Amino acid sequence: MAASALTAAAVFLLFHGGVLGFPAGQFTRDEPACGYKSCPATKPSMLNVHLVPHTHDDVGWLKTVDQYYYGDRNDIQHAGVQYILDSVVQQLQEDPARRFIYVETAFFYRWWKQQSAKTRQVVTNLVNEGRLEFINGGWCMSDEATTHYSAVIDQMTLGLRFLNDTFGACGRPRVAWHIDPFGHAREHASMFAQMGYDGFFFGRLDYQDKGRRMKDKDMEMLWRASESLAPPTADLFTGVLPNGYNPPEGFCWDQLCSDAPIRDDPDLEDYNVEEIVKKFLNAANEQATLYRTNHIIMTMGSDFQYENANLWYKNMDKLIRYVNAQQSKGSKVNVLYSTPSCYLQELHRANLTWSVKTDDFFPYADDAHDFWTGYFTSRPALKHYERLSNSLLQICNQLEVLGGSESRRGPHGEGDSDTLKRAMAVAQHHDAVSGTEKQHVANDYAKRLSIGAAHCQVLVSNALSKLSGSDAPRVYCENLNISMCPLTESSSKFSVTVYNPLSRSVSWSVRLPLNGTRYSVTDPSGREVDSQVVPVSQATRDIRKDRGYAVNELVFQVQAPPLGFSTYSVSLLNDHPPPASPNPGVPLYLQNKFLKVTFDPDTGLLSSLSNLETKQTVQLKQNFFWYNASVGNAESSQASGAYIFRPNSSTPVPVSLNAKTQTVQNSVVQEVWQQFGPWVSQVVRLYQDSRNLELEWTVGPIPVGDYVGKEVITRLDTNINSSGLFYTDSNGREVLERRRDFRPTWVLKQTEPIAGNYYPFNSRIYIKDKEQQLTVVTDRSQGGSSIQDGSLEIMLHRRLLMDDYRGVGEPLSEPGEYAKGLVVRGRLLLALTPPAAAADTHRPLAEELVLQPLLSLQAEDMHPNAVLEFSGLQAALPPAVHLLTVSQWDRDSVLLRLEHQFEAKESQTHSQPVTVNLQKLFSTLEVVGVSEMSLAANQWKDEMTRMDWKGNTGEKPLKRGTGDPSVWEVTLNPMEIRTFLLRMRHR
Amino acid sequence: MAASALTAAAVFLLFHGGVLGFPAGQFTRDEPACGYKSCPATKPSMLNVHLVPHTHDDVGWLKTVDQYYYGDRNDIQHAGVQYILDSVVQQLQEDPARRFIYVETAFFYRWWKQQSAKTRQVVTNLVNEGRLEFINGGWCMSDEATTHYSAVIDQMTLGLRFLNDTFGACGRPRVAWHIDPFGHAREHASMFAQMGYDGFFFGRLDYQDKGRRMKDKDMEMLWRASESLAPPTADLFTGVLPNGYNPPEGFCWDQLCSDAPIRDDPDLEDYNVEEIVKKFLNAANEQATLYRTNHIIMTMGSDFQYENANLWYKNMDKLIRYVNAQQSKGSKVNVLYSTPSCYLQELHRANLTWSVKTDDFFPYADDAHDFWTGYFTSRPALKHYERLSNSLLQICNQLEVLGGSESRRGPHGEGDSDTLKRAMAVAQHHDAVSGTEKQHVANDYAKRLSIGAAHCQVLVSNALSKLSGSDAPRVYCENLNISMCPLTESSSKFSVTVYNPLSRSVSWSVRLPLNGTRYSVTDPSGREVDSQVVPVSQATRDIRKDRGYAVNELVFQVQAPPLGFSTYSVSLLNDHPPPASPNPGVPLYLQNKFLKVTFDPDTGLLSSLSNLETKQTVQLKQNFFWYNASVGNAESSQASGAYIFRPNSSTPVPVSLNAKTQTVQNSVVQEVWQQFGPWVSQVVRLYQDSRNLELEWTVGPIPVGDYVGKEVITRLDTNINSSGLFYTDSNGREVLERRRDFRPTWVLKQTEPIAGNYYPFNSRIYIKDKEQQLTVVTDRSQGGSSIQDGSLEIMLHRRLLMDDYRGVGEPLSEPGEYAKGLVVRGRLLLALTPPAAAADTHRPLAEELVLQPLLSLQAEDMHPNAVLEFSGLQAALPPAVHLLTVSQWDRDSVLLRLEHQFEAKESQTHSQPVTVNLQKLFSTLEVVGVSEMSLAANQWKDEMTRMDWKGNTGEKPLKRGTGDPSVWEVTLNPMEIRTFLLRMRHR
Repeated sequence: MAASALTAAAVFLLFHGGVLGFPAGQFTRDEPACGYKSCPATKPSMLNVHLVPHTHDDVGWLKTVDQYYYGDRNDIQHAGVQYILDSVVQQLQEDPARRFIYVETAFFYRWWKQQSAKTRQVVTNLVNEGRLEFINGGWCMSDEATTHYSAVIDQMTLGLRFLNDTFGACGRPRVAWHIDPFGHAREHASMFAQMGYDGFFFGRLDYQDKGRRMKDKDMEMLWRASESLAPPTADLFTGVLPNGYNPPEGFCWDQLCSDAPIRDDPDLEDYNVEEIVKKFLNAANEQATLYRTNHIIMTMGSDFQYENANLWYKNMDKLIRYVNAQQSKGSKVNVLYSTPSCYLQELHRANLTWSVKTDDFFPYADDAHDFWTGYFTSRPALKHYERLSNSLLQICNQLEVLGGSESRRGPHGEGDSDTLKRAMAVAQHHDAVSGTEKQHVANDYAKRLSIGAAHCQVLVSNALSKLSGSDAPRVYCENLNISMCPLTESSSKFSVTVYNPLSRSVSWSVRLPLNGTRYSVTDPSGREVDSQVVPVSQATRDIRKDRGYAVNELVFQVQAPPLGFSTYSVSLLNDHPPPASPNPGVPLYLQNKFLKVTFDPDTGLLSSLSNLETKQTVQLKQNFFWYNASVGNAESSQASGAYIFRPNSSTPVPVSLNAKTQTVQNSVVQEVWQQFGPWVSQVVRLYQDSRNLELEWTVGPIPVGDYVGKEVITRLDTNINSSGLFYTDSNGREVLERRRDFRPTWVLKQTEPIAGNYYPFNSRIYIKDKEQQLTVVTDRSQGGSSIQDGSLEIMLHRRLLMDDYRGVGEPLSEPGEYAKGLVVRGRLLLALTPPAAAADTHRPLAEELVLQPLLSLQAEDMHPNAVLEFSGLQAALPPAVHLLTVSQWDRDSVLLRLEHQFEAKESQTHSQPVTVNLQKLFSTLEVVGVSEMSLAANQWKDEMTRMDWKGNTGEKPLKRGTGDPSVWEVTLNPMEIRTFLLRMRHR
Repeated sequence: MAASALTAAAVFLLFHGGVLGFPAGQFTRDEPACGYKSCPATKPSMLNVHLVPHTHDDVGWLKTVDQYYYGDRNDIQHAGVQYILDSVVQQLQEDPARRFIYVETAFFYRWWKQQSAKTRQVVTNLVNEGRLEFINGGWCMSDEATTHYSAVIDQMTLGLRFLNDTFGACGRPRVAWHIDPFGHAREHASMFAQMGYDGFFFGRLDYQDKGRRMKDKDMEMLWRASESLAPPTADLFTGVLPNGYNPPEGFCWDQLCSDAPIRDDPDLEDYNVEEIVKKFLNAANEQATLYRTNHIIMTMGSDFQYENANLWYKNMDKLIRYVNAQQSKGSKVNVLYSTPSCYLQELHRANLTWSVKTDDFFPYADDAHDFWTGYFTSRPALKHYERLSNSLLQICNQLEVLGGSESRRGPHGEGDSDTLKRAMAVAQHHDAVSGTEKQHVANDYAKRLSIGAAHCQVLVSNALSKLSGSDAPRVYCENLNISMCPLTESSSKFSVTVYNPLSRSVSWSVRLPLNGTRYSVTDPSGREVDSQVVPVSQATRDIRKDRGYAVNELVFQVQAPPLGFSTYSVSLLNDHPPPASPNPGVPLYLQNKFLKVTFDPDTGLLSSLSNLETKQTVQLKQNFFWYNASVGNAESSQASGAYIFRPNSSTPVPVSLNAKTQTVQNSVVQEVWQQFGPWVSQVVRLYQDSRNLELEWTVGPIPVGDYVGKEVITRLDTNINSSGLFYTDSNGREVLERRRDFRPTWVLKQTEPIAGNYYPFNSRIYIKDKEQQLTVVTDRSQGGSSIQDGSLEIMLHRRLLMDDYRGVGEPLSEPGEYAKGLVVRGRLLLALTPPAAAADTHRPLAEELVLQPLLSLQAEDMHPNAVLEFSGLQAALPPAVHLLTVSQWDRDSVLLRLEHQFEAKESQTHSQPVTVNLQKLFSTLEVVGVSEMSLAANQWKDEMTRMDWKGNTGEKPLKRGTGDPSVWEVTLNPMEIRTFLLRMRHR
């Protein structure tokens, strides 16, 4: 990546001097006429039709991102992004009136690094003149249902930084552009607002919603995307595009289309100029009836179009010429090449009052039986791996800062965070973590994450060497969830370093596979820690097969300091008998000092949950079921698939009415092992010091020998009086209320009583009544619902036999090992609290699950002087503060994001402003300069001037100052994220 | 069309001054370094791989020519030639090493006329530098089996003239390039030689032939393409391309392909440079084993490729770079952008002796049961319409000259010959007259011809007005073959002008549909002509249905002078009884003074034919049969289709064993009407003065209600002792001997005893023994064979139920009226002669059938001073001389082609040199200058220096002078065509 302007800034406030991203030394140059200033003239007395030439380039879908880039595997899908950019750049040069927007920086980055200096200059000129404009500009166009806000902010930052570094201010997108994602999250809108976008356009929304909006001319609105942030912080002007992201019917001139070209040589057959002009005028006038101003937008492009841009431009040139020629004959339609931002500027100039939206755009249905709610869960293993990778990346970023430059080149070789940054950014794409890609592409995303992880592991090892003084090799055991770790299995003595990425101390349960029967575990101060050996369950052995041989697991609790590590030593103690086999049958209850959970002795199922501190008890029956996936029926041919969830009955089939059970209980953990049949099992687990109940589910291989596709859920049936309501978070942050068979902004005609009530959640879903709230915190994004009052259901895994006709062209049937079907294991953490105290539990719980401690293992003896405990912070931060980002920006600068992780009203304790002193933050680093930035760090915060839009609520939002006590003391209000560039010095 | 250099030349020999086609006034400018001089350097010590970027642009096939040009109907096939040329021109500018060849002038012409002056200059520079090279250069790439030499020469002339006029010498192609036609005609090779091409490359030949040639390194040869013309006049260096016209497997980088691109960014996945280089070196070295020099050619392109040329060039640039980089590591392979002519030049430099081929490349089979012999007959109605259109075009051309400028703009409006010239040129394409296009495209070819005809009819009317002095409207009745002509049907008095395009007087039978019962017919001198009224047959009425109502036909004989017309007057005589109904039953014989034909009274079939002059008689049984079209079987899935003929049995099914017969006999004509069932009938017809027997067959709608595709033949079984031999002409000129189950140049393994013995013929097919020759002269191109000694069979019509997997994607099942199946009517003319005298009969007979007199009808009374008889010639030319071309070239010049229409040894009378005095040729035009040209008129004959190639026959061909007695007196040797540009003045 090219050096950015920020390397030139040395001390506090000096950062403010220039336009961010401008190459150093060019601060004084005239700003080029890009952006709004470069917009084409329009005609006030006419209907102005903004043609927006664009391509939609999936960062992986039917092909991998690199196959798409190169145009490989065109037998799968014809698409080659390298050629798109070649062609567009060439065609833009032909005529200064032509415009193009480009969106996905993952591709642009690949292309740019292969270009000659000459081409780069040409492109820079095009950008500076506004002829080539970047829109959205993240690394990818992220999925909105299944992504976590942390990774979305990262991927946007990565893409926008590349554009800033490469093109300066003219490379900064003004418009967010999510034309394809399958529903829209409120948190995305909030983030886009905080990133400084002036507006947002998308293509997909519920067909009933769209119908209502078309009827009411309500296609464009103001989205108030946070209940916590004061307007207009999270206000985002939002427009629904008229034709998804496609051109109007009959006007697709890409090589991938078959519409008639404009045949304007009268000497040849089928001269069609009059016909086309007439058809276009009709299309424009019809579209104008749905929108409020005398400007309309037409998206002239689609998936991977413009590989041969000449086709599009040649015909659009003619269209513009012939349609505008009608003006001399009285036509009032004016067609022009434009961009979304130029269209947006015209809307802004219209100075209208817009309706205000406060909910979101989930779920998305494009027809009565076509609810895109399956992908909330599709590919649960990939969804989990993505989440784990984010955790590793944050740790990698932190340690790159804490470990200094030796992190990247040290005793363990060369490491970097960039590879995982890019892999994570790619994985945010709306056909990546969403699970809607082809199988081989899903494999590729995982492979990228894995390569990125390997790079990070080297960096982490180097950093830990630096911080600990121990250069001994470190091993990262990535298969602990199936009790595999070659080092611990074969060693009688080793150490475990637990790195904690949170800004407060954590306590965590460690489980290590091994073959001994008794071990001594000591903490950094040499104190013995209580540890227990438990046998590896048969369920785990069945999954693991011959990839590992550990018969036992060592279980103990560890503590690690804020942004730091603790190292524990483990030694085999000889001559102890094997651990007791688990007891058959089910105990009446498990209990620690916080929780009690009871079981039905007849069925082996859970029967109640009690919070012993608050003295609350709910009935809680939990079981596993599957929906029979529709293959289409007389009502609709729609089948369940990677995108679509459509059960063929509203009544799910129980996997089993009873569970075979065993139990393990010791001083560290109490477990009930439930077996629901050959392909579903669960461990109900209660750690000694835990305030939540862990349900570790294992599902798969889902059998389909009966030719029935299955969508497996777990359902928790309680006596909570939830009154049709349930709650899901948006991208892991703010929580939205959901009401069964209801949408806040239109009168819903419910046509799919199950699928039409599913919503995505990323960290938590809950039901409550006045007294009790049952919150489920999960380890990955999933779909869930509450179909009956008191009931919560979560879809865990899906295996289907049909494609759902949305392009992926494969049934979602993950092969797993030996193509027998994928086995997936995951965890749900249950908390029962009074509603008012729920956030105090689920916010930190979700935080701990999202940013998990990283274990590194060393077999060699520790150096006697090795540092066994370290914290990068001077002190733990207040509970409300989440350290969202600590990441090296350039040689001397660090990107810091501080987040208030509570909503405005959810916690009596924590929903308060909280102040952090930046100079007192780090223990080993001195902060010598600071400047606040926009959320995606591509603009100085105080230069971030957004368009103001009037909402129809009547209120007039006031811009308020930060209210910070001093330049070093940063106050965070509920749900606020603040982004800083820090100039750092190692102490 | 731009003014050519020829307009600047004024008098005899001044024509020689400059390079033909150079814009006037530029004769002195330096010749650009195009052509052979522009060829890239090669490496003598290495294997040089000539990459030839090319596109193969069918001038109609699955889409019409204009749909292909514009890229319309991409749902049928993705193809848009306008974009190909846009893209190639753009990409050639990127790097001077890049080359491209372009072939089909029909498309280039369409493109060029839409280009700006700036683009034209860019293209001209590319052409002048040899970076864009025209190859072949005709209007289209003609079919070789079903085209007539006259139309082929015309279409080549049209294309090459456009290139000459546009680009001068650098636009002149050096190489003939027939990469796709389905077999290769010797006459085509002969024409290409006479057009000045240095070499010829093609892609398709019999798979056994190719196997043999690969084994023997005999892929390149010298084709001696005439038995009459002295070598090297018709010698053509001919090369078989290695992969048809495709790139080697794995190296197709067009957007229409799916081969892996070169992925040379090591940061991305699947870096494949080494793999591709290795694969390419293997491919090159393997190909080199099949060829004789250290140069090989690879055709880098295919059908409609290069629409986005960037894909090809970007990857080929890399290929060249990476493969040649291996040279520093010892590789001996050198890859370069090249052209066919640059490759040819290297072969020529190799100075080798090449094998000599004297037969042709028919039939073409690409596998054991895949003989491409169906298209010889496919779409017989289109084949006939094309032939008739050629006749009209020649007449149009002649009258444009004879009538002067008033022909184009006169009392009947504006007419032109260009429209029909272009329509005819398009129809020569190898998926046009060949019958291998989709139905809608066949309709388009016919429509173009029809529009062209209308333009010519105006011109002809104007010219005849000028020459006759009568401005009365003229009507051209184009449906006389089904007894329809509104004018004659409704008029009691009208005149018929018979224009004769031949250089000698003709006598011809006219049949006019009408409703009277007796008419008076007078010749130009007012003499009464014998005329008869005969009833319209039921067979004709069944075809015609309600499109016409004539109940009778008036039959009489007309005479017309050389290159001139005669006008006959017809008046209804009242009060005559209707003509006798035809007599039922069959007569024993029909007879005139030259011929006698007998019938089998039991079957109604022909039984013998006698030549009364030579006192020869042959048994002659003639009947109609159909082959059951294969739909594929266990041996091969190949079905019969538009291209492929594959009967499922070698025994054809008789349509009927007997014919129901009727007879009509009068003083003008004797006819036997044979009905073979509901869909086959025939008229056996003997005119009073005719030396040939006419068989007018009517076939269709071929019934397929039985789900059996049918390929209908007529078979003539005689007692001629033909010894396995039969004879077919090549493009209507020289005749080749065919031997059943035999090929002259390899040991044939016959796998299809019927289809593998079919050959195309264009005007004649015959069998003979020492005494007797039965010659069949036909009205259109057809396929035929002699499956048994003494037997001749001709395929007339085909209707099939299966596509034959060669791309057309439709079964050949012409819909005809109401989609019931097309009815086709045609004529075979039979002549029985001694072999030595056969040519004296069939040459003029074929000539008369190819260039038929044109009837124009006028209803008004003739102007009293109207000229009723006119000849454009001072005198008839000798019988050996055919006036092939008389066509206006520019304002003062006329293109003249004189042809000796006899082969060297076929006529005792006519196979002699014959001399024509050009100044004594025309009656109304004075020839004031003359210069001889190459056959396609794009080069002065004396500047036409072709590469000399050594054949392995040992003989050393001598170039001989023309042997003309004087500059005005032109001597023609057997089969010679001489082409002149004449400077003319109207006397």
